[in-house]
Amino acid sequence: MKFLIPAKATTWAPVPANSDFPIQNLPFGVVVHEDEQRVVTRIGDQILELAALAEEGFLPGDPVDYLDIETIIGEEGGDGLSRLRKMLYDLLRTDNPNLRDNSAAKAKCFHPAQDAPLNLPLMIDAYVDFYSGINHASNVGKMFRPDMAPLLPNYRHLPVGYNGRASSVIPSGVPVKRPCGQTKAADADMPTFGPTKELDFELEMGFFVGAQSEMGEAIPIDEIEDYILGFVMVNDWSARDVQRWEYQPLGPFLAKSFATSISPWLITLDALEPFRIAGLTQDPPVLPHLRSPKPGHYDIQLEVSIQTPRMTKPQVISRTNTKELYWTAYQQLTHQSSNGTPLEVGDLYASGTISGSEKGTFGSLLELSWRGTEPIKLTETGETRTFLQDGDVVTFRGWAQGEGFRVGFGELTTEILPA
Amino acid sequence: MKFLIPAKATTWAPVPANSDFPIQNLPFGVVVHEDEQRVVTRIGDQILELAALAEEGFLPGDPVDYLDIETIIGEEGGDGLSRLRKMLYDLLRTDNPNLRDNSAAKAKCFHPAQDAPLNLPLMIDAYVDFYSGINHASNVGKMFRPDMAPLLPNYRHLPVGYNGRASSVIPSGVPVKRPCGQTKAADADMPTFGPTKELDFELEMGFFVGAQSEMGEAIPIDEIEDYILGFVMVNDWSARDVQRWEYQPLGPFLAKSFATSISPWLITLDALEPFRIAGLTQDPPVLPHLRSPKPGHYDIQLEVSIQTPRMTKPQVISRTNTKELYWTAYQQLTHQSSNGTPLEVGDLYASGTISGSEKGTFGSLLELSWRGTEPIKLTETGETRTFLQDGDVVTFRGWAQGEGFRVGFGELTTEILPA
Repeated sequence: MKFLIPAKATTWAPVPANSDFPIQNLPFGVVVHEDEQRVVTRIGDQILELAALAEEGFLPGDPVDYLDIETIIGEEGGDGLSRLRKMLYDLLRTDNPNLRDNSAAKAKCFHPAQDAPLNLPLMIDAYVDFYSGINHASNVGKMFRPDMAPLLPNYRHLPVGYNGRASSVIPSGVPVKRPCGQTKAADADMPTFGPTKELDFELEMGFFVGAQSEMGEAIPIDEIEDYILGFVMVNDWSARDVQRWEYQPLGPFLAKSFATSISPWLITLDALEPFRIAGLTQDPPVLPHLRSPKPGHYDIQLEVSIQTPRMTKPQVISRTNTKELYWTAYQQLTHQSSNGTPLEVGDLYASGTISGSEKGTFGSLLELSWRGTEPIKLTETGETRTFLQDGDVVTFRGWAQGEGFRVGFGELTTEILPA
Repeated sequence: MKFLIPAKATTWAPVPANSDFPIQNLPFGVVVHEDEQRVVTRIGDQILELAALAEEGFLPGDPVDYLDIETIIGEEGGDGLSRLRKMLYDLLRTDNPNLRDNSAAKAKCFHPAQDAPLNLPLMIDAYVDFYSGINHASNVGKMFRPDMAPLLPNYRHLPVGYNGRASSVIPSGVPVKRPCGQTKAADADMPTFGPTKELDFELEMGFFVGAQSEMGEAIPIDEIEDYILGFVMVNDWSARDVQRWEYQPLGPFLAKSFATSISPWLITLDALEPFRIAGLTQDPPVLPHLRSPKPGHYDIQLEVSIQTPRMTKPQVISRTNTKELYWTAYQQLTHQSSNGTPLEVGDLYASGTISGSEKGTFGSLLELSWRGTEPIKLTETGETRTFLQDGDVVTFRGWAQGEGFRVGFGELTTEILPA
């Protein structure tokens, strides 16, 4: 099933202007309260606890069915979230008095959003990172292989990707310690081991899998949507100096695995459905098994800001959009499943770094500072940055703009701690 | 703690000559019986159920404490297995009459090994594959980069590795379906999608992690042994034609993730302790954080055989030894932990393909048939092989040879099914 909330829908719950979380969003997140997890949704600046709603009789079943998203979806996958989101919409619509006029129940179920640090929305079994930002791949090619065509021959035929490390995926708000690693200066005989000098972010969009497939079973692209729950923003932290030395011939490893941050609200496929677009033309045409039956890209605006310890407020250093991606989430997951590897509930897939085509729209400092040759200027303090320094705070924001409302991802904010 | 069983130790349980499972081994495995998992050890041709031993009062605690290895080790890691293995040794020693003379208990606790298909020993959270077989890396370099030095500059400075896919790790006996994938012939304009034509095995040794580390915490090499439970053989199935087309620039992905097979008995570090050796000289010397305080290699003999549908018995096509590895398990795991990524119970790490230095000692068909140019001859039927065909059965065997006994891994056997 799909459940689309009308653009004109209204709620009795307070929603500030330009909130990321109007009635059209209704995302899912997980708060930790006295060591116990609880699934919540968000409306405006408040979170709404689902187990409390069940206790009060506003949701069916037992409150313990609402303590994690895996239990909520059960065997239903995304359909489970669609069904639940429909019930939440019904409860929150302007003309439904049931919860609206019950002050005691409201006091029990609603809490201020800023009081509730959010955990990862699902237990993450596996993390895969694609490379589908075509401008990023092209920029990296220009910088590191200047004597070759910027894109390798396979780029437009398959969504290039690699397996990442799931154990170090963390939610917004958890700081990242500058990692140590092995690096070798171009003019040195021997490598050295120590804190990375080239710590970078990568702006990506990710999605969660919500259904299991069998080993040996390839899911066709016209069914793959049933395996996806929704999207989160991803910051794929990278140590560029470590990466340069380690990555040949088997790809990135420790340069990426020290931490990956995700935004905590799972924005459902249904909430993003009005923002589907055809996206970039794929030329040459892709092989039949990767041809989508319908548009698979999204129009989601993205913004990166940075705040150094000396700054009093963040400065936006990049603005871009997920429509800069070459491959869709549906193509990525179809490709992953095409060799029969089992998909598992909690698999997280990231898009690859999303960059626009010009300066100021790039999704990494590597590109924004063009490999350190053009430092970024921070106007408030006159500081510059090529790569991140200790104490810097990096924030991603993302939202799809509707007529009179936006479906937003909230913030993905991370502070860099010293090694 | 360490618990070493003397070379001269004997048991009252029957052990055939040259068994992989004398009293000096006592490995751990998991059988599935009516949908319930049970941890077992093995002596000779029999398995011994630990929950049944607990029920009969021969092991402390509740029988449900013995249903999976994660519960057995708890917070103790490898020490938990050492302690348990000591109790099993005491029960099985020739001069202990307690179980020996209790026919009813023996009938309940022992079962013929061939009746019990074994599952994975632990739930696998993450699978990482290294590239530490120096002859393999060198052979691949010669074949694919003939105009360069066979080893890349980083090879002798860090254990090159990449993250694999854990959801498709399977135990011995589970067949592998020939995967489909995207390939491009050298003279073709466009790639095609279909069953791989270059299905290959890779002979590797793997180890399981048995303790959790904190995010941001790098475990020093002199403590890393506490994080390792023991070893299994690994067959890292590979689709060479898929790999060639997909792997630039981020490494192997779908060419490897369709299946990885492991031998089902977890051979403990304690059982392998008598077979530790210094191994290959590392030159130039490795950086201080990768220097082991004691010998970290093992003398384990390995053998690969193949049986086609027309053959009546398998033919050994390769014989080699884990001492051909350049990097030790201890160095690999120290490297993995050096950037602070959390280690987790159930992490599986594989060594990389183990090849000797001459023909007949290589750990993959890619090398044995030298990229298809020198097909292997199967003497019984006169057939040849460059890569695997449907119906072929590949079997790995491995054992450490002591004086008068061997500590063996049993068999890792897999049949290839059509796509």
